[in-house]
Amino acid sequence: VLALKQKVWRLMEKIWKLGVDDPRRIFHCFKVAVALTVVSLFYYLRPLYNGVGGTAMWAIMTVVVIFEYTVGATLSKGLNRGMATLLAGTLAVGVHSVASRSGERADPIIRGVSVFLLASGATFSRFIPTIKTRFDYGVSIFILTFSLVSVSGYRVDELVGLAQQRLSTIAIGGTMCMLISMLVCPVWAGEDLHLLITRNIEKLANSLDGCVAAYFEDTGNVTNKEETSEKSQAYKCVLNSKAAEEALAIFARWEPAHGRFAFRHPWNQYLKIGTATRYCAYCVEALNSCLNSENKVPESMKKHLSDVCIKLSSHSSNVLKELSAATKIMRKSPNMEFLVGEMNNAVEDLQEALKYLPHHLPPTPTEGTEKEQRPPPVSTTTVALIEVVPLVTVASLLIEIARRIEGVSSE
Amino acid sequence: VLALKQKVWRLMEKIWKLGVDDPRRIFHCFKVAVALTVVSLFYYLRPLYNGVGGTAMWAIMTVVVIFEYTVGATLSKGLNRGMATLLAGTLAVGVHSVASRSGERADPIIRGVSVFLLASGATFSRFIPTIKTRFDYGVSIFILTFSLVSVSGYRVDELVGLAQQRLSTIAIGGTMCMLISMLVCPVWAGEDLHLLITRNIEKLANSLDGCVAAYFEDTGNVTNKEETSEKSQAYKCVLNSKAAEEALAIFARWEPAHGRFAFRHPWNQYLKIGTATRYCAYCVEALNSCLNSENKVPESMKKHLSDVCIKLSSHSSNVLKELSAATKIMRKSPNMEFLVGEMNNAVEDLQEALKYLPHHLPPTPTEGTEKEQRPPPVSTTTVALIEVVPLVTVASLLIEIARRIEGVSSE
Repeated sequence: VLALKQKVWRLMEKIWKLGVDDPRRIFHCFKVAVALTVVSLFYYLRPLYNGVGGTAMWAIMTVVVIFEYTVGATLSKGLNRGMATLLAGTLAVGVHSVASRSGERADPIIRGVSVFLLASGATFSRFIPTIKTRFDYGVSIFILTFSLVSVSGYRVDELVGLAQQRLSTIAIGGTMCMLISMLVCPVWAGEDLHLLITRNIEKLANSLDGCVAAYFEDTGNVTNKEETSEKSQAYKCVLNSKAAEEALAIFARWEPAHGRFAFRHPWNQYLKIGTATRYCAYCVEALNSCLNSENKVPESMKKHLSDVCIKLSSHSSNVLKELSAATKIMRKSPNMEFLVGEMNNAVEDLQEALKYLPHHLPPTPTEGTEKEQRPPPVSTTTVALIEVVPLVTVASLLIEIARRIEGVSSE
Repeated sequence: VLALKQKVWRLMEKIWKLGVDDPRRIFHCFKVAVALTVVSLFYYLRPLYNGVGGTAMWAIMTVVVIFEYTVGATLSKGLNRGMATLLAGTLAVGVHSVASRSGERADPIIRGVSVFLLASGATFSRFIPTIKTRFDYGVSIFILTFSLVSVSGYRVDELVGLAQQRLSTIAIGGTMCMLISMLVCPVWAGEDLHLLITRNIEKLANSLDGCVAAYFEDTGNVTNKEETSEKSQAYKCVLNSKAAEEALAIFARWEPAHGRFAFRHPWNQYLKIGTATRYCAYCVEALNSCLNSENKVPESMKKHLSDVCIKLSSHSSNVLKELSAATKIMRKSPNMEFLVGEMNNAVEDLQEALKYLPHHLPPTPTEGTEKEQRPPPVSTTTVALIEVVPLVTVASLLIEIARRIEGVSSE
């Protein structure tokens, strides 16, 4: 019993944390509930019910199905549903009028064949990537509406009137959802994407700093160390954020202008920056595993490279931080070129230091017992090299892309 | 006009390729169309229509909404829908019976408050990760059914009868979908996941081989080179397959026993293998960017390490291939330990070779003009080191995990 109680307690804590972490979630729940209660009025109020009758059901259904967390997702579903219903309804009424005039025997055959063809064709179109990402829901609603209207036309009189009524209740429900989601504490997918990307770049910069610093500075109190190790693990979020970024970018495309974002904000650039950041994170991951390898490097070697390495990593992370700041305000940073120049200088310094490394090596073997330890120096070199080669390329790639987005978004 | 024609032509080609690449997609479209046509019979055949009347609509709706590409997805949606409808329907009928007995004024208030509370609570539960991944659809259907039944109960007489009829048509539509998707050319998410994982491991092995071989063997005809470069880029698929793997694993959990997979097949192990493979791919990515860096390494240096590096990479990729084969047949491979031993020997050889590298270095500076080229040797060292340290750790991790899954799945 106690174990169960503890489990429940922990679950409650988790749920509480979900709400506290992002209070917009709680607002979202109330928004959905309010929307549902409002559309219920179609049933509760006699004059409204007389207007639409049983089709009020479709308003409730629409609210439940299309109200999503972000504005973009709600708009995407709402517009998809609206357009698909309109298109499929028109088509189905057309098929109905042909079928109902062609005799009792041909009627169900015409309906059946048209449903079969359209359903298989539309289902296939869902495999096309562009349609899959943007109109998947619309296609499924298209199949649904077409089948419902054209098939039920066989039994129902006044099909056109019914279809119109249904369309209007769907439109009412959909419009209400979209308005509520946009006007009451809106959660913009675009803004979330923007934040996610800038935070990821920042995290990466901190990780890079943290990794290298932790490696070279072995002294320092424990609490401080834990903090840095937490920071330096932050890049792992970056590795796994691809799916989230893509989903947000898809929704962001549906959103109208809001805050500092125009309607046709170059959301794709964010994805490119995200990808470049991730490629950077792969390098940090490789770097990190080198740093954590068991091979111990003699202190003298470490010292030799320590300064240049730390300098390079801090310059690189400065570039990343500046990039993050530039992305945040969506302006080209005036310091960027200077910082990149400093980073490149640091790269050259490191290369210089490496050049003289072989001359430093020969003395060590004379210590005799250290022989077993000789391969490790290479590890230090690796630290350096990994930073030099891929990081610089990726960083410059990042800069390149950032310049482009800044150019595009400041237009 | 010509440009448009070409565009259409290219689109058609793409669509054709979609079908040819995986003919199961075409079967899927026909399966959906057949299911829809069959449920349409509820409208076409008088005795069936008399049985269910207008609620036949729900059968069509169910088919359109729950019929997904893989069996797992269909089952997950179908069972979610069934359970949620049953639960919400029961609850709503309960609320209805309370509300309808509590006077004309209190009635809509009771209904409204219960809808408000349940909708906001259920919406919030969708933010809980476990519910989000497995029961998201069920929760939305729960809200839908509860609102529909409890609110429409205000106007509709014989609510219980209607709810029962609706439930039974949903059950008929859902059962049909699940049966068709399982019995006619089934697309098992589990099998797809299995294939995806084994192929990814294989791709990674080929990439590793290809990268290292391309770097050390500069000679060779061009067509051959293109082929290897295509192969060595294959690891990029591995980097991006996380979302696909996770989706398949979620669906696979809903699938009954099929082929060589039991009902409670350890699908999570596949995710773990996938993650380990991806970590391996990060290293290959870093390795690749080192190989492609502009720093040219003097041929003599290259030759010195060429043999050991190629040996190590081929041994590593052998281990990966063996792993892939072992995963394919879900048995522990008897050769594995031997291959891992060989790989570890190769690692030691490489470390040995590196140990003598510094002694090789001093002669080069005497050539004077080569001074500018001295840093690059480090690059070769990096190639080696990156392979040695992270790859070996990751590979041994992979082996560790593979042993576990083999243990679990051969039980």
